[in-house]
Amino acid sequence: MSSDGRATARRLWVDLGTRGYPIHIGSGLIGDAELYRPHIGGRQVLIVSNTTVAPLYLAQVQAALAGFDHEAVVLPDGEQYKDLGTLNGIFDALLQRRMGRDVTLIALGGGVVGDMAGFAAACYQRGVAFIQVPTTLLAQVDSSVGGKTGVNHPLGKNMIGAFHQPRAVIADTDTLRTLPDRELSAGLAEVVKYGLIRDTAFLDWLHANAEPLMTRDGAALAEAVERSCVNKAEVVAADEREAGQRALLNLGHTFGHAIEAGLGYGEWLHGEAVAAGMVMAADLSVRLGWLDAADAVRARDLLARFALPVEPPPGIDADRWMALMAVDKKVLAGKLRLVLLRRLGNAVVTADFAPEALCGLLSDIESRVSD
Amino acid sequence: MSSDGRATARRLWVDLGTRGYPIHIGSGLIGDAELYRPHIGGRQVLIVSNTTVAPLYLAQVQAALAGFDHEAVVLPDGEQYKDLGTLNGIFDALLQRRMGRDVTLIALGGGVVGDMAGFAAACYQRGVAFIQVPTTLLAQVDSSVGGKTGVNHPLGKNMIGAFHQPRAVIADTDTLRTLPDRELSAGLAEVVKYGLIRDTAFLDWLHANAEPLMTRDGAALAEAVERSCVNKAEVVAADEREAGQRALLNLGHTFGHAIEAGLGYGEWLHGEAVAAGMVMAADLSVRLGWLDAADAVRARDLLARFALPVEPPPGIDADRWMALMAVDKKVLAGKLRLVLLRRLGNAVVTADFAPEALCGLLSDIESRVSD
Repeated sequence: MSSDGRATARRLWVDLGTRGYPIHIGSGLIGDAELYRPHIGGRQVLIVSNTTVAPLYLAQVQAALAGFDHEAVVLPDGEQYKDLGTLNGIFDALLQRRMGRDVTLIALGGGVVGDMAGFAAACYQRGVAFIQVPTTLLAQVDSSVGGKTGVNHPLGKNMIGAFHQPRAVIADTDTLRTLPDRELSAGLAEVVKYGLIRDTAFLDWLHANAEPLMTRDGAALAEAVERSCVNKAEVVAADEREAGQRALLNLGHTFGHAIEAGLGYGEWLHGEAVAAGMVMAADLSVRLGWLDAADAVRARDLLARFALPVEPPPGIDADRWMALMAVDKKVLAGKLRLVLLRRLGNAVVTADFAPEALCGLLSDIESRVSD
Repeated sequence: MSSDGRATARRLWVDLGTRGYPIHIGSGLIGDAELYRPHIGGRQVLIVSNTTVAPLYLAQVQAALAGFDHEAVVLPDGEQYKDLGTLNGIFDALLQRRMGRDVTLIALGGGVVGDMAGFAAACYQRGVAFIQVPTTLLAQVDSSVGGKTGVNHPLGKNMIGAFHQPRAVIADTDTLRTLPDRELSAGLAEVVKYGLIRDTAFLDWLHANAEPLMTRDGAALAEAVERSCVNKAEVVAADEREAGQRALLNLGHTFGHAIEAGLGYGEWLHGEAVAAGMVMAADLSVRLGWLDAADAVRARDLLARFALPVEPPPGIDADRWMALMAVDKKVLAGKLRLVLLRRLGNAVVTADFAPEALCGLLSDIESRVSD
């Protein structure tokens, strides 16, 4: 940290061999031409953004691209547009502008923009380069790291996609100042997740720094982004294609996806659904005799301090929960697998849990939150 | 060959390290359960076919899959359906049937079915297994080998796709008996291509065996499929992601794609357009002083013996040619690159040719074939 309290640039490396890439984290990075230039192979650049982010930051990115042949495509904002139709709009833009195989896409926005621009880059002419410029906390700590790209299908979230690594990630913490409160909180849900699954020291730091994070202290946010990215990068480097431990990053996500699908995408933010889902996963872990009840309560309290929901919404009964979770990708050959906590900081992916414990959890929720 | 003249099973190996896979070629393979079984990891199988091929061969494939939980999705037949909308129909089928990450897709049909089923496999849950069962000569010698998958966009052919290798290719030469004459010829265009770009001995064999190939002699067809696959597998093994020599497989394709786009997809078969395109590439190579004129004439004659067009269609003037070729993927940073013949059996990808030679070719064609 510099003496004026602003974050200085930090640089991580995601170690994926020939697909390795840097993550730059700090203040004032979004307009720094030198962070883009080394990762743009040709002359052509297509910036993909949305109607909310483009008015705020597109000009700064364009200024950093002086000398390149750059164009922008501005998508409608929202998870409900993360589909094949909107994706096709990116292909339209690329082809109408005659962009060649050496084009570089830049994803300027949150997770939805990153997932779609990344998937477009994965598929356009069977694969072109892209750079992530995440402007939400969720995207900075999660979706911009690891190469998962894709779109939703009416029958399931992120069901259509590709693994496609960016050439670089430029995470400017200044962009978090314009973030709506709900989205800041949603990002913090994923931050807490890293602590719960593998980093109890980070969890302690989060308990101690909840207030500066909620008041958007730049240094605290940069620290949270960096430690989240370090955790995610380590997991991804060990398991790029999600054959094993990478699935641990999905703590709370099977329940969370069910909440999102049950309510209809867009009602709850992804991070909000994950927060409630993590509380459910922790509760189930306690019921199985794995996690200490006090640790589950403490995790729930931390999420509540971050203004996150710690109960699922009403209106989903136990049968509906099971139906919604059955389409989750972690159902392998018909068997529901969940990420659960053996203890704090130690997550496992398992189908080997007593079904009565899950039934008990769901029926307790049904009676507690029914409307 | 066995004494009764029927092809026996031949097995090639496409050497791509952990993504390597076998190609089985021969008679009576499509219903052989033992060729499928080792490559199906889970219990669920989705067969993707079309309205023409399914009535002919779906039952045989289903019989070979006894014991698996298999379903079929039957697409409309034709290049005009090779788009994101039809692709989404495969995702619908996968999700409606709750197919998990360990599902295996089987592409039963020609190149269009193979490209779409392969691309669906590449994208579904970010990548699942698939097996190619090509039922056209074109698919057996070309599109089923090498892992290129994708769909068309209104502004360009195969612009959206992925590299995704099959687990196995099962090429039953018996299926070629039901192939329309035009499609047999279209497949032979790609067969000739291998000879022109890298195998003059095979080219001599084709001149000597044009008649048995056209009368669908099983042994001759199996030999042609095997030698084509050997050639393609060697090229692909050396350059899986088309960074270099793999582009040589596109001889005639830049001109051919322009013909297909100019006429509207579906007017000419891909192989027909490639045949006329290869004659154009050979003509241009002669104009550049590279290829012997006699070799170009001989190549043209061979294509004509295979009942293939050796002139482009009327109605495309020189300006339109240039515009159509400008969207071809081989345009790198604005410069038109073509696959040309330095001499017979020796192709190069180059942007380094006299533009007047191309202008001369196009204006000669314009005056010769204008309607």
